[in-house]
Amino acid sequence: MDKAIFLDNAATTRTDPEVVGVMSEWLGDNFGSPATLYTFGSQAKQAIEQARQHLADLIGADQKDIYFTSGATESNNWAIKGVAEALEEKGKHIITNQAEHHSILMPCRHLEKRGWDVTYLPVDGDGLVNPEDVAGAIREDTVLVTMVHANHEIGTIQPIEEIGAITREKGVYLHVNAAQSVGHIPVDVAALSCDLLSLSGHKFYGPKGVGALYIKRGVRIVPLLLGGGQEKKRRAGTHNVPGIVGLGKAAELARKNLGPEMERLTALRDYMIGLIEKNMDDIRLNGHRTRRLPNNINVSIEGIEGESIMLSLSYPTAANARPVFVSTGSACVSGTLEPSHILLALGLPAELAHGSVRMTMSRHDTREDADYALNILFEVAERLRAMSPVYKRGSKKCASGSSGEGCDCEAAS
Amino acid sequence: MDKAIFLDNAATTRTDPEVVGVMSEWLGDNFGSPATLYTFGSQAKQAIEQARQHLADLIGADQKDIYFTSGATESNNWAIKGVAEALEEKGKHIITNQAEHHSILMPCRHLEKRGWDVTYLPVDGDGLVNPEDVAGAIREDTVLVTMVHANHEIGTIQPIEEIGAITREKGVYLHVNAAQSVGHIPVDVAALSCDLLSLSGHKFYGPKGVGALYIKRGVRIVPLLLGGGQEKKRRAGTHNVPGIVGLGKAAELARKNLGPEMERLTALRDYMIGLIEKNMDDIRLNGHRTRRLPNNINVSIEGIEGESIMLSLSYPTAANARPVFVSTGSACVSGTLEPSHILLALGLPAELAHGSVRMTMSRHDTREDADYALNILFEVAERLRAMSPVYKRGSKKCASGSSGEGCDCEAAS
Repeated sequence: MDKAIFLDNAATTRTDPEVVGVMSEWLGDNFGSPATLYTFGSQAKQAIEQARQHLADLIGADQKDIYFTSGATESNNWAIKGVAEALEEKGKHIITNQAEHHSILMPCRHLEKRGWDVTYLPVDGDGLVNPEDVAGAIREDTVLVTMVHANHEIGTIQPIEEIGAITREKGVYLHVNAAQSVGHIPVDVAALSCDLLSLSGHKFYGPKGVGALYIKRGVRIVPLLLGGGQEKKRRAGTHNVPGIVGLGKAAELARKNLGPEMERLTALRDYMIGLIEKNMDDIRLNGHRTRRLPNNINVSIEGIEGESIMLSLSYPTAANARPVFVSTGSACVSGTLEPSHILLALGLPAELAHGSVRMTMSRHDTREDADYALNILFEVAERLRAMSPVYKRGSKKCASGSSGEGCDCEAAS
Repeated sequence: MDKAIFLDNAATTRTDPEVVGVMSEWLGDNFGSPATLYTFGSQAKQAIEQARQHLADLIGADQKDIYFTSGATESNNWAIKGVAEALEEKGKHIITNQAEHHSILMPCRHLEKRGWDVTYLPVDGDGLVNPEDVAGAIREDTVLVTMVHANHEIGTIQPIEEIGAITREKGVYLHVNAAQSVGHIPVDVAALSCDLLSLSGHKFYGPKGVGALYIKRGVRIVPLLLGGGQEKKRRAGTHNVPGIVGLGKAAELARKNLGPEMERLTALRDYMIGLIEKNMDDIRLNGHRTRRLPNNINVSIEGIEGESIMLSLSYPTAANARPVFVSTGSACVSGTLEPSHILLALGLPAELAHGSVRMTMSRHDTREDADYALNILFEVAERLRAMSPVYKRGSKKCASGSSGEGCDCEAAS
């Protein structure tokens, strides 16, 4: 197969060769556990502490406040359940929003079944939470606000700084799921005024199976994984040394490349959005036009299913030898036929939510790759629309999308 | 430094080069997530399903009952908290034993704080639980018995088959922490009559950061990590594909090598125990003499601290160029000065519990390595004893240890 164009980097990224390189050192002869006291273990301990420092540097944290986990899902579960349990005497109210990732929503729903009260704030047509809504929702018994930094599906970046100012003033913990933003845009725990922050290695060219939870010093939280004394008795389990070292290297590389790569990807993104809007009728850009991740494009294509587009793009043809990998809805739940809860939260009618395609670019993608991929997208969409019994060109159910600029209609709500 | 002799394989093992080899394939170009529907993801899905089958074959399970986790600590936490929560309407009583791993004891203590009742059964001087004690402890409201298969510190193998027959008859779930036994001795979920079983990759030449929980079909358990639909909606989070593939390869290799390697290590273990007992006075073999892991030796050496022995062995000298890595107490809690709760549970006085040395061999260790390591041990112990203000040869506080055969005293209790 010719070189594929992988535009599903919000799901997972190619592990950087330098990351693989340092991991390999710890997959072979250096297999000691940092929990042990002899020299062999001390070397592993030094390596993970260096990784902790790299990660801390990337998010502006004190390295003492970084706790390694198996990924953002664990970090999110830990943050929500751990704070809820630690503060249950104080109150049992949590605030989040309707367009969160399932690893936020599901722990919240789980707590609801066990006596907690959760407020799911609405988002606007671009996926933004209104900080005033957060302020209005905070009650005497509110113990946690959990807000995503950048939405994994539509790329919208939340006004976390403003939300953080509110939670800090009200003395309520703020947890930020930054799985999509860390390594892609500046993330600074002090600027965000957050108390807890989740991240995942494989979302920014690091390894799968490793992540971290930032816990600001003094924050009360019950451990999720209890056992040995690792991670200052807050997260038990033998350290995944190769994974942690790889995560550290990914953080180091991300910090080095962040500025130029953001600029390059933002230009690529806007170039691609421009081409899509020029070449396709009856589409909607989902998510905010400018307050969005540099590598995220999400469009609803009227009259066709995202699933059909995704599969059609993924099979090479005689004319188009390079497969193109995109996603529809969330990669975590694809395989179901339910429309994305995030697109529904934006107010999209189910038929438009079904027709969404997400393209998330990486540091490997060039303008030539983008041209190639989009040409196939245009062909495939045209072909599928021609076969569609329902599509009628120009019906404009919701053609322009993001109200960031130049919108000519509002999402149904 | 000359080639070290690593005798701390109960803490962690050297990842097999074949395991590293297959992991490398999934660390590079094949970075797709199995949750995605396009071909690139399908390949990853096939790889993890093959790994699941290898793991299922190793423990006699249906592959549908294998759930990948980040390691045994997560599996243990999930099993205990997940069953407790799923069955809390039925009852809130759990049975375990005093010599369990912290990743069992700590979740139990956590549940106690939240209204559950936990019975910690005693163990005898060899660390064995009496199945009749289990039968006697089961009540109307008992929902779970959690028993380790082989103790990580003293290597004693519990009579799980007998305990499983009891729990099955009484209709109570049995969870088995098999982190130390899987890949080292036969583990068959049907023969053990267990409902849940935890295991960890890095304990049998697989990678760190990955493990599994076997959940027998029909067992009621609440997920610990909630979020995406991975692992049939029971364990969310993007799959650690390289780790899982590595775990599968480790399982495949373990199954192939199990019989001969057990035989070889048992002979090596008994040869070493024989040498120790011949060359050292006033020692106690901790754990059962025969019902023990083929690769485990644990001895208390009267009059000296295990910590001092461990550190002395780990530094090469002019005469002994090869460092020898052993452990004292549990690797997970070493760093603390508390005596091992497991040795205390055997009835050892604190001073003997402090003087324990654990040597756990691997498939790489030969009789020559053993001779080399033990000669240094004898020298070091002699030297430390000579400096000890308290040791008096022949005081025989508890000289012979395991009552498995030829014991001339009983552990204080």
